[in-house]
Amino acid sequence: MATAVTPPRGMRDFLPADKATRERALGIIRGSFAAHGFDEIETPVMEDTARLHSGLGGDNEKLGFAVLKRGLAPADLTAAAEADDLLSLADLGLRFDLTVPLARFYASHRAELPAVFRSIQIAPVWRAERPQKGRYRQFVQCDIDIIGEAGPLAEIELITATAAALDNLGLTGCTVRINDRRILSTMLATWGVEASLTERALITLDKLDKIGVDGVVAELGDLGITTEGLADTLTGFAGLAWPDPADAPAWLDPAAYTDLLALRAALPGVPLEFDPTLVRGMGYYTGTIFEIAHPDLGYSLGGGGRYDGMIGRFLGTDVPACGFSIGFERIVDLLAGADDDASSAVVLVHEKDANPAALVALKTALVGQGLRVRLDKRTKNLKALLERAGAAGYGRFAFVTDDTDPADLVFKPLGD
Amino acid sequence: MATAVTPPRGMRDFLPADKATRERALGIIRGSFAAHGFDEIETPVMEDTARLHSGLGGDNEKLGFAVLKRGLAPADLTAAAEADDLLSLADLGLRFDLTVPLARFYASHRAELPAVFRSIQIAPVWRAERPQKGRYRQFVQCDIDIIGEAGPLAEIELITATAAALDNLGLTGCTVRINDRRILSTMLATWGVEASLTERALITLDKLDKIGVDGVVAELGDLGITTEGLADTLTGFAGLAWPDPADAPAWLDPAAYTDLLALRAALPGVPLEFDPTLVRGMGYYTGTIFEIAHPDLGYSLGGGGRYDGMIGRFLGTDVPACGFSIGFERIVDLLAGADDDASSAVVLVHEKDANPAALVALKTALVGQGLRVRLDKRTKNLKALLERAGAAGYGRFAFVTDDTDPADLVFKPLGD
Repeated sequence: MATAVTPPRGMRDFLPADKATRERALGIIRGSFAAHGFDEIETPVMEDTARLHSGLGGDNEKLGFAVLKRGLAPADLTAAAEADDLLSLADLGLRFDLTVPLARFYASHRAELPAVFRSIQIAPVWRAERPQKGRYRQFVQCDIDIIGEAGPLAEIELITATAAALDNLGLTGCTVRINDRRILSTMLATWGVEASLTERALITLDKLDKIGVDGVVAELGDLGITTEGLADTLTGFAGLAWPDPADAPAWLDPAAYTDLLALRAALPGVPLEFDPTLVRGMGYYTGTIFEIAHPDLGYSLGGGGRYDGMIGRFLGTDVPACGFSIGFERIVDLLAGADDDASSAVVLVHEKDANPAALVALKTALVGQGLRVRLDKRTKNLKALLERAGAAGYGRFAFVTDDTDPADLVFKPLGD
Repeated sequence: MATAVTPPRGMRDFLPADKATRERALGIIRGSFAAHGFDEIETPVMEDTARLHSGLGGDNEKLGFAVLKRGLAPADLTAAAEADDLLSLADLGLRFDLTVPLARFYASHRAELPAVFRSIQIAPVWRAERPQKGRYRQFVQCDIDIIGEAGPLAEIELITATAAALDNLGLTGCTVRINDRRILSTMLATWGVEASLTERALITLDKLDKIGVDGVVAELGDLGITTEGLADTLTGFAGLAWPDPADAPAWLDPAAYTDLLALRAALPGVPLEFDPTLVRGMGYYTGTIFEIAHPDLGYSLGGGGRYDGMIGRFLGTDVPACGFSIGFERIVDLLAGADDDASSAVVLVHEKDANPAALVALKTALVGQGLRVRLDKRTKNLKALLERAGAAGYGRFAFVTDDTDPADLVFKPLGD
């Protein structure tokens, strides 16, 4: 029986305490973004299959959940079998990220949006990945994007708003690692890496903090990249910090680095860390890329970058764009579940045979005073009842009868 | 191009102004339910196909979106074609209501929940219906349910909390129509309707306000139901109000009617209207049923009832349950979009070549003062820019330069 009633593989139910923590965190994130002038939008959870498989989603396209066409006949199935084309049976799919739907949304509604559009999307996405610890098949992303701004104002606003959200969540110690795709391109060019090897070389470089200098040199060597001084360059990344541009190494693209220095100067309140090994997977990034790092964690809490070519794929004309996504599931695990307003949430414990009308009248009177009120029937194990209510975020309780006067109620703390 | 970027058929994008109205309304509903001691939960948007097609969803089961199994081979498609069993290709489906997932959730987590569990679910559901005005393929439902309470306390709390939510939304003039499945059963029995015709007779009765007394008499006649005095009884429903039980008509089940009168007495603040023709479609209701009516509207704004047999289908042992669902899409259309805090949302209009760092520093200072702040690049058509900002919920604006001191800013109203 137990296995028959679990949620689908890799997906989760949220009980009240967890749901409350999630909604509280989402409210803080939403409020932080809105305060910084971003506007929330929403798109359907499904998009047409053709759009989801347009090549903009990278490897995520392969992880999409496909939705069966309605009204298919056996002949359609036979035809799909003969063509070995499973996807021809699907017309829709669940979105695997919020960027492809945003590009589609912008193309559809551009005339109704401001010239520079700052969007918030806070919504679930789905990926049919092999479930593992901390990786789910349904998870929430919190994205902000600025479409129509080619200059650094976009990066500055995105990083400022994201830093404010993390701050308001009480997450301290985060830094933002930053790099630029142009710096990576120039670096590989100075190393003599052929264009056909760029992607594989970047995948290797991205692993520097996991496999070390020797590992990267060995993997690049396997690709035939044996540039002189490579090991020294890679070793030098560790103590690099923000090199003086007058004294910058040869691999450091001057124009892109000047832009990064300007961002740094414009973001005095944000701990910005230049990291020439930051790659980020998505092929659509064209300029700045960034990631949120936390000293205690081996994975990033979010990231983003500039993707100037992507909107044009749906729109027909290129529009500059830049985005920052918070990995909500990773963030929410770091938050304390404590509810500050527990004392305004009270439990009224009543006998089994109490008059329902009187109980609800009493409850409604207390709700009218601004309290959150739950009725709980007295059980043999009162301690367990109260503990459960405490875990659910209630802070005080009182025993009530049919003729309890709300003015006479004295609440006791539920304890901790 | 235009058709290539629309959302999928029957589904909608929400632009910032609409999204803001929706989130504001959802916040009010969520807060109202929480104040009344309900706890929010969340389940995945998908459930296993077997659960969605267990017969609990009524006609809605046929409207489900099915999700293709991953990794199917051509042989699987051929087999499905031969068996004419399209659904064998799907292992998951999008939920078509929130009640089936709740029953599954409760069966999975009963040990972690209080003896009487009051749930909130605010979430989208999907139905592959023929799209038409006001009917969508993705839409939000706001459900509250009480599981584990057999007595009228459940109905009283549900109706009180729902009435409070409508009140807090500013929706005036709503009434709650109420009836009991037992009253319908007894009525049909006194008319001599055979059990096999019950469902069809109820579908006809439900149409009384649309097809009138003559229409109902004719349709029932077609079913062979030609009870003497039927037309008089149906005509009498109109002026029935709350009949004196001492003087109640023969078709009125005394026990169920006594329960309804008790509910009426326990809900002095809610306009409760007894309606013996209220049927509600779902076959799983076992007792009280209710619906929200608005004098200006020909459709209900929500409804619910008692469904004591359903949870047992997943759990193995019967547990009493009662629920009330608000039809969010219908509610939100009735709400004014006005944002009360527009004056705290301001637009800073800047020249194209302004210093981005200075602009964001100024913006951040104002955000720190509690304002919501959007930067807008000055365009030729300033009037259009300001109108658009006003429509998006911003209330004031100011022109700014690189060296504007926040303390010197004077905002002008955006007008209306």
